[in-house]
Amino acid sequence: MAAEGDLEALAAARPLLTDLYQVTMALGYWRAGRARDAAEFELFFRRCPFGGAFALFAGLRDCVRLLRAFRLRDADVRFLASALPPDTDPAFFEHLRALDCSGVTVRALPEGSLAFPGVPLLRVSGPLLVVQLLETPLLYLVGYASLVATSAARLRLIAGPEKRLMEMGLRRAQGPDGGLTASTYSYLGGFDSSSNVLAGQLRGVPVTGTLAHSFVTSFAGNEVPPDPMLAPAAGEGPGVDLAARAEVWLARVCAHLELGVQEPHPGERAAFVAYALAFPRAFQGLLDSYSVRRSGLPNFLAVALALGELGYRAVGVRLDSGDLLQQAREVRGVLRTTAAHFQVPWLERLCITVSNNVDEEELARLAQEGSEVNVIGIGTSVVTCPRQPSLGCVYKLVSVGGQPRMKLTEDPEKQTLPGSKTAFRLLGADGALLSDVLQLAEEPPPQAGQELRVWPRGAREPCTVTPAQLCQPLPSLAESRAFAQLSLSRLGPAHRRLHGPELYQVALSEKLQALVDSLSARGSP
Amino acid sequence: MAAEGDLEALAAARPLLTDLYQVTMALGYWRAGRARDAAEFELFFRRCPFGGAFALFAGLRDCVRLLRAFRLRDADVRFLASALPPDTDPAFFEHLRALDCSGVTVRALPEGSLAFPGVPLLRVSGPLLVVQLLETPLLYLVGYASLVATSAARLRLIAGPEKRLMEMGLRRAQGPDGGLTASTYSYLGGFDSSSNVLAGQLRGVPVTGTLAHSFVTSFAGNEVPPDPMLAPAAGEGPGVDLAARAEVWLARVCAHLELGVQEPHPGERAAFVAYALAFPRAFQGLLDSYSVRRSGLPNFLAVALALGELGYRAVGVRLDSGDLLQQAREVRGVLRTTAAHFQVPWLERLCITVSNNVDEEELARLAQEGSEVNVIGIGTSVVTCPRQPSLGCVYKLVSVGGQPRMKLTEDPEKQTLPGSKTAFRLLGADGALLSDVLQLAEEPPPQAGQELRVWPRGAREPCTVTPAQLCQPLPSLAESRAFAQLSLSRLGPAHRRLHGPELYQVALSEKLQALVDSLSARGSP
Repeated sequence: MAAEGDLEALAAARPLLTDLYQVTMALGYWRAGRARDAAEFELFFRRCPFGGAFALFAGLRDCVRLLRAFRLRDADVRFLASALPPDTDPAFFEHLRALDCSGVTVRALPEGSLAFPGVPLLRVSGPLLVVQLLETPLLYLVGYASLVATSAARLRLIAGPEKRLMEMGLRRAQGPDGGLTASTYSYLGGFDSSSNVLAGQLRGVPVTGTLAHSFVTSFAGNEVPPDPMLAPAAGEGPGVDLAARAEVWLARVCAHLELGVQEPHPGERAAFVAYALAFPRAFQGLLDSYSVRRSGLPNFLAVALALGELGYRAVGVRLDSGDLLQQAREVRGVLRTTAAHFQVPWLERLCITVSNNVDEEELARLAQEGSEVNVIGIGTSVVTCPRQPSLGCVYKLVSVGGQPRMKLTEDPEKQTLPGSKTAFRLLGADGALLSDVLQLAEEPPPQAGQELRVWPRGAREPCTVTPAQLCQPLPSLAESRAFAQLSLSRLGPAHRRLHGPELYQVALSEKLQALVDSLSARGSP
Repeated sequence: MAAEGDLEALAAARPLLTDLYQVTMALGYWRAGRARDAAEFELFFRRCPFGGAFALFAGLRDCVRLLRAFRLRDADVRFLASALPPDTDPAFFEHLRALDCSGVTVRALPEGSLAFPGVPLLRVSGPLLVVQLLETPLLYLVGYASLVATSAARLRLIAGPEKRLMEMGLRRAQGPDGGLTASTYSYLGGFDSSSNVLAGQLRGVPVTGTLAHSFVTSFAGNEVPPDPMLAPAAGEGPGVDLAARAEVWLARVCAHLELGVQEPHPGERAAFVAYALAFPRAFQGLLDSYSVRRSGLPNFLAVALALGELGYRAVGVRLDSGDLLQQAREVRGVLRTTAAHFQVPWLERLCITVSNNVDEEELARLAQEGSEVNVIGIGTSVVTCPRQPSLGCVYKLVSVGGQPRMKLTEDPEKQTLPGSKTAFRLLGADGALLSDVLQLAEEPPPQAGQELRVWPRGAREPCTVTPAQLCQPLPSLAESRAFAQLSLSRLGPAHRRLHGPELYQVALSEKLQALVDSLSARGSP
């Protein structure tokens, strides 16, 4: 654990994982004598992802790790010197060598908070040169984490509270770290577990997994295990040859299912026996390596019933191809008749896990009323977010030396809101969300019960709302996850929509609106 | 560099960044006495990405790093023990502690090779337990790298050879490693540079970058640099106050452009002066913080002409919003008339860089005949590959103990090709691609000039083709990149298509086809 902790810290402390222009700008600020000017940036996104009406904020814990570890080592500074003009003043590199984030303050939403367009996820203030340098890492630490958490939250809303959701997308991620981030934040967003072992080791995410088709197809059926005997679950009495007992049960099962005893693939059965010998208390079968109905299911039942004789209860089955909903129904049917036929009632309640390119639409189908599916494995869809693979966060300068800054540009959507701001989330009497209100830091906070005049973003007329409070930070990933679920419960029916126009109101205070108006008039030549 | 090298090695050696089922299967194999059985897996993809007709293979250097470093540390084994049944035989954990990849052989296409569906990118052979454990890491190391390299190659084909392409997507990547992988392999695929400094430090990718809007908006215009003087480029003669000279030139430029001298934003000009003081030999202006025509361009020209007096040549301008093609045309027009007016011919040839959500369609527009754009920055599109954010590579068991293995399933597309195989790429007399032929390892290689009977995949009738040779591996990233460009030159017009049905033929040898037929007949119950 110590070594891994070091590795995480080391990986967090890769200050050169940034855009070169942060460094060229650093030199520019330094040369202009402005490296230590007090500056504030805001990190936010402009539109809710996936065409939905909300996002979940995540990635804060990685930002904190970055800020703690941020330091340029000698090798880093030497490399930067090689990328800058050869006559650059050596004093600049001395300045870089001495940098850390001790002068930086980050104010953030708690991880797991609902987040809305234009409302800062992070407000980062400190010396201009340093807070500028932090732009790229903060964007890549927050953007993808929040995207995955939001994707997971949507999938959880679709699945409902009962179905278990397992993330298994490591192999489809953008290399090592993409996978670790995806596993961590899909758990935060509401998944139950991940296949990613490192996410278990480093982040405490529950990890799950059983066997793949390669395990099944690696057996021909003529393999002889070094020790074929299995002791009873209670530990008393002689062991039995599990493979031999499975053959006995196979004949009974095939008779019950009206199959020829030669039909189920012997290699698949040998694989199930091998897995059961290793995991007698956690036996699961992957049914679709050859044919679910004619091979996978009878082989599974033979081994599960042989285990049952010894007092072990199988856990369940997995389906990884074909029509998952329909097959789950058929498998449940066979489990029921078999349970009744052999008088083993536990058999009918076995867990049915499905996987295979499950996305939001397929999940809705699998989670429908009457579905026999218990666990759904989702990989590519939650990890790559194909509907929108980036959140598009931005990091914008809002003040320098206490003076507000605003980017105007020719593109109104890219205009920024000037000034150091605070945001308040207003709740109604029933605890549901009303609106987020952005105001200048110098303005007094809204008071509960007191009417507030605000400008919805983009509108030219104010309206009135009733205020509430901001949430408090929570420490652990599990707590952030609980907080995320709590946050999601605040979504009213309109905001729970996963597609369609954004409805949640983000409003500006009177003073902020006035500042926007005056800077727009002044700055636009 | 040493520390970063260590970090890379450490990061590569995170054997727990894997799916838990690899570990549960390992225990299953071990318990069945099969941990050391000789096995072979193939890693391939089933369909070309993005609806195109080719892929580029990349990620091999990361796989080699993984194989060299692969070892379970004590902390890893302890964590695995906590995730497995408590009565697991301790000898299994001893086996894990002793694992490395010394018994593993990987045969691969050279990085930068063209790759086609079903043709192995990697063939991995060695002890069953170890080569099974490698599945997840090999998939995440190859899949995304190849996807990004292919995406970059497509963008290069669209841009043509002249336009310079800069990758700048770090902030949109799946966290730290996603960004590093994207920068490395978009360079391999044909980009000219990256904004990612770490990709320069660790991988030797050329890095480029200048300034962002925050640098521009951080200046109000009343800042006084500690040293406003700039010496002439030739180093002889007295320095001048650059800001003062820029004011003189601003009046001339505004007169020429028929603008009021108050119109250009003074803060933007101060930012340009500050940047020019830091980078007098590499001055570039970002034009769209306020208004390109009325502020950014005249301010840039004033500073560029002031620098010109001192013998410095500005490098160029960047546009980051609006209609990039149209604005580049207008900017070039102003550069031309200004160059003529002030008799500074170098001014009209300045480099025009554009960026802002450039994707394949927008790139085609920017690269059209008559475009005045020189450099195109692409971020989100190349890094997240929104059209298809994962390649969907799979890793399938093809033989154990020298015996072929085949997965049948109910889904014909998921069937595998059995047996240890080699692939040959057949070229025509003109050097263009004809077909890839997969055959069993035991078959003699095709001979140049000798007719070969093969079965196109999925077809039931053979056809004939003329053979050639496989390419040789190349070592450095730059060489792989050169090789990728060479590979791409082999694409005939039909295969260069970026959309539409896949046309490239992947064929099976007679013997392989016969084995497929026999196993399908035998295994399908």
